Amino acid sequence: MSPAFRPSLLTDQYELTMLQAALAGGAAQRRCVFEVFARRLPDGRRYGVLAGTGRLLEQLPDFRFGDEELADLERRKVVDAPTLRWLADYRFQGEITGYGEGECYLPGSPVLTVEGSFAEAVMLETFVLSVLNHDSAIAAAASRMTAAADQRPCLEMGARRTHEEAGVAAARAAYIAGFAASSLLASGARYGIPTIGTAAHAFTLLHDDELEAFAAQVASLGAGTTLLVDTYDVTRGVENAIKAAGTGLGAVRLDSGDLVMQAHAVRAQLDRLGATGTKIVVTSDLDEFAIAALAAAPVDSYGVGTQLVTGSGAPTAGMVYKLVAREGADGTMIPVAKKSASKASVGGRKWAVRRRDAAGVADQELLGLGGPVPSGAEYRPLQRPLVTRGEIVDTSSLEDARARHQASRAELPVTARQLSRGEAAVPTVVYQEEAR
Amino acid sequence: MSPAFRPSLLTDQYELTMLQAALAGGAAQRRCVFEVFARRLPDGRRYGVLAGTGRLLEQLPDFRFGDEELADLERRKVVDAPTLRWLADYRFQGEITGYGEGECYLPGSPVLTVEGSFAEAVMLETFVLSVLNHDSAIAAAASRMTAAADQRPCLEMGARRTHEEAGVAAARAAYIAGFAASSLLASGARYGIPTIGTAAHAFTLLHDDELEAFAAQVASLGAGTTLLVDTYDVTRGVENAIKAAGTGLGAVRLDSGDLVMQAHAVRAQLDRLGATGTKIVVTSDLDEFAIAALAAAPVDSYGVGTQLVTGSGAPTAGMVYKLVAREGADGTMIPVAKKSASKASVGGRKWAVRRRDAAGVADQELLGLGGPVPSGAEYRPLQRPLVTRGEIVDTSSLEDARARHQASRAELPVTARQLSRGEAAVPTVVYQEEAR
Repeated sequence: MSPAFRPSLLTDQYELTMLQAALAGGAAQRRCVFEVFARRLPDGRRYGVLAGTGRLLEQLPDFRFGDEELADLERRKVVDAPTLRWLADYRFQGEITGYGEGECYLPGSPVLTVEGSFAEAVMLETFVLSVLNHDSAIAAAASRMTAAADQRPCLEMGARRTHEEAGVAAARAAYIAGFAASSLLASGARYGIPTIGTAAHAFTLLHDDELEAFAAQVASLGAGTTLLVDTYDVTRGVENAIKAAGTGLGAVRLDSGDLVMQAHAVRAQLDRLGATGTKIVVTSDLDEFAIAALAAAPVDSYGVGTQLVTGSGAPTAGMVYKLVAREGADGTMIPVAKKSASKASVGGRKWAVRRRDAAGVADQELLGLGGPVPSGAEYRPLQRPLVTRGEIVDTSSLEDARARHQASRAELPVTARQLSRGEAAVPTVVYQEEAR
Repeated sequence: MSPAFRPSLLTDQYELTMLQAALAGGAAQRRCVFEVFARRLPDGRRYGVLAGTGRLLEQLPDFRFGDEELADLERRKVVDAPTLRWLADYRFQGEITGYGEGECYLPGSPVLTVEGSFAEAVMLETFVLSVLNHDSAIAAAASRMTAAADQRPCLEMGARRTHEEAGVAAARAAYIAGFAASSLLASGARYGIPTIGTAAHAFTLLHDDELEAFAAQVASLGAGTTLLVDTYDVTRGVENAIKAAGTGLGAVRLDSGDLVMQAHAVRAQLDRLGATGTKIVVTSDLDEFAIAALAAAPVDSYGVGTQLVTGSGAPTAGMVYKLVAREGADGTMIPVAKKSASKASVGGRKWAVRRRDAAGVADQELLGLGGPVPSGAEYRPLQRPLVTRGEIVDTSSLEDARARHQASRAELPVTARQLSRGEAAVPTVVYQEEAR
């Protein structure tokens, strides 16, 4: 990891070689519009969730080429001397608009629009995509989990199953999508996310018997703690838990076995012992389907690890960063798009509004090229200024993003909450001026 | 991201609450052995590949609690004052042994063994697992890809599809597993991995026509560059490419469509045009199966993105960090293991050797509890000292890990290279002393 480099090197080499060729060839200063969008949702998913915008904006001011970065590029002969001189002065001075963080999106939704010279805008491609593709994949999975959990809290516990820094971002994305807390200390330190956790099987195994371990935990952490009761035998574990903590025990945790059956048995046992207020936390390889299957079981909260941080089958959001318009020789903006097989897209800068029916339910993701943006109560504008002339103008907090996600998901048709595989919950319609 | 915290906060809260309870209860100083292993391989996989050890060791000296970390833990009331005082002096002073980075592993292989007081060893759980689970998942996928590609180079291009820091680690893991280069600048800057890349579709679209774009690229990057020929029409693209660069063009890149058919057509066209030395790079949503399907096509190298950085269907290695032995009241070490449903494991510290048959092919992953470690030419010892009394003693380089992987994979039975779903290529046998 040493020396520590700025995020500007979290960039694919071709962005710099394109820059070099465009600087030499004279096209580098042409004004360009790049759009970030997902061509499709992961197989069977009903909606996407945009996350990462806040992390992007917080790192953007540091997306510069300082002495360390320039020395590396020079040493490894990545680009020529004029390009290095240009990079030394680089700082993004264009415009960025985008959907609010936490917003639900659909195929083709222009979740981020970057406008500036080719040179300054092409540079952000890899970094923008890394942040948004990762965080949005986690947020989309998390949103399905919190929807399935309904009022019961979901707890993020996946750090150990993903890259150490991705774990922090995953906790943040999960929080946006409604998770109540995270096991990861860094998520609390960096983002103020509530953190949770009491003990693992190792703590029980460290002691000569389970009762001794529980007694030590209660003595130090109080009776309100959560005791992990499945190291040896669950029934005996619950018995020992109440013996150690009394009927005021905060919670017991189940981390293996048939959770539905166990939850019923443990709830009955706790009630019999008089611990009617003691909660049950379950944490064994859960995903949105397992959470839904536990809806009728007496469970109080869900700890989710692997399946959350790996996007529950869809570990990346598959967003792309595409040039959609650029300045022509006469100074006007020309829509552009790749034409060939299977990856064709619609050229031109797009506006985006979400249309709602009389009951307030979203029924169209309306995108348009030019012309006035539809207004009126049924149309909710989706794009907002994030960066203006290089300055960050969006001041959304993490709590704003969390609230935005809740409102955005609530507005989708009920089919959006179905876990079964299906089409996007809202159709995307591209309103072409010439089609009027 | 601000302020920047040390890796010590990349830790689950329960490690610190266990520490607090163990410090108060008196068990914190008991000597403990933790083992890292995968209970099983991802569904259908024949072998795993250990990666991340080098990243772990490079960050370990910084796994401390400084003023910023302690202030955060105090402010958020994560642990009590005696625990904070203990953390202020914390630095791992125990022993770590493990498989060499790049080594192939099998279910149950003790890829890392951490020994020290409970207090100092329990702290490393989340961090160790994050690094090894991520990097090993990528390395395992990468190894299948380089095996399928045989002598043709594989190029890592996945940064945009994963968390920005995970992208750097993924490039490193892929390099260990035989990838030739990475598109990501930071992988070159941090780890000396060769970086590659020339241009995207945006560069072509920026110009008034394709020939103008190619001419600008060749003028700046030379005729040895790689031209992306599928923005409009591939046949026309190849024609323009040779027009712009001459028959000495380095390579053309295909990023969409039916790659087998296109590769044959493009090779024929290039040869017809006299560009017999111009290579063909393909880069469209490849995985190990697509690479294998291209074996008979005239392709020179493979650019792999999404499927590499997401582990090609297995985004995490699923390793666990388990207490397997701890000091008893009389000072002897006692094997311990969780007993209850579905997650039972074998207690006791294990040695590990790989047995080879007369032809030098691995036929057994032999693990043992106590007793002499089998020696002789047929047994290859797998564990090596990494950290001794807190000091890093392993000096393996990234190149060493890459060579080690190649040798380790070559030693596996031919079934290991089959891409079809199957059992582990080598059976794991636990040699129990009492079974002698």
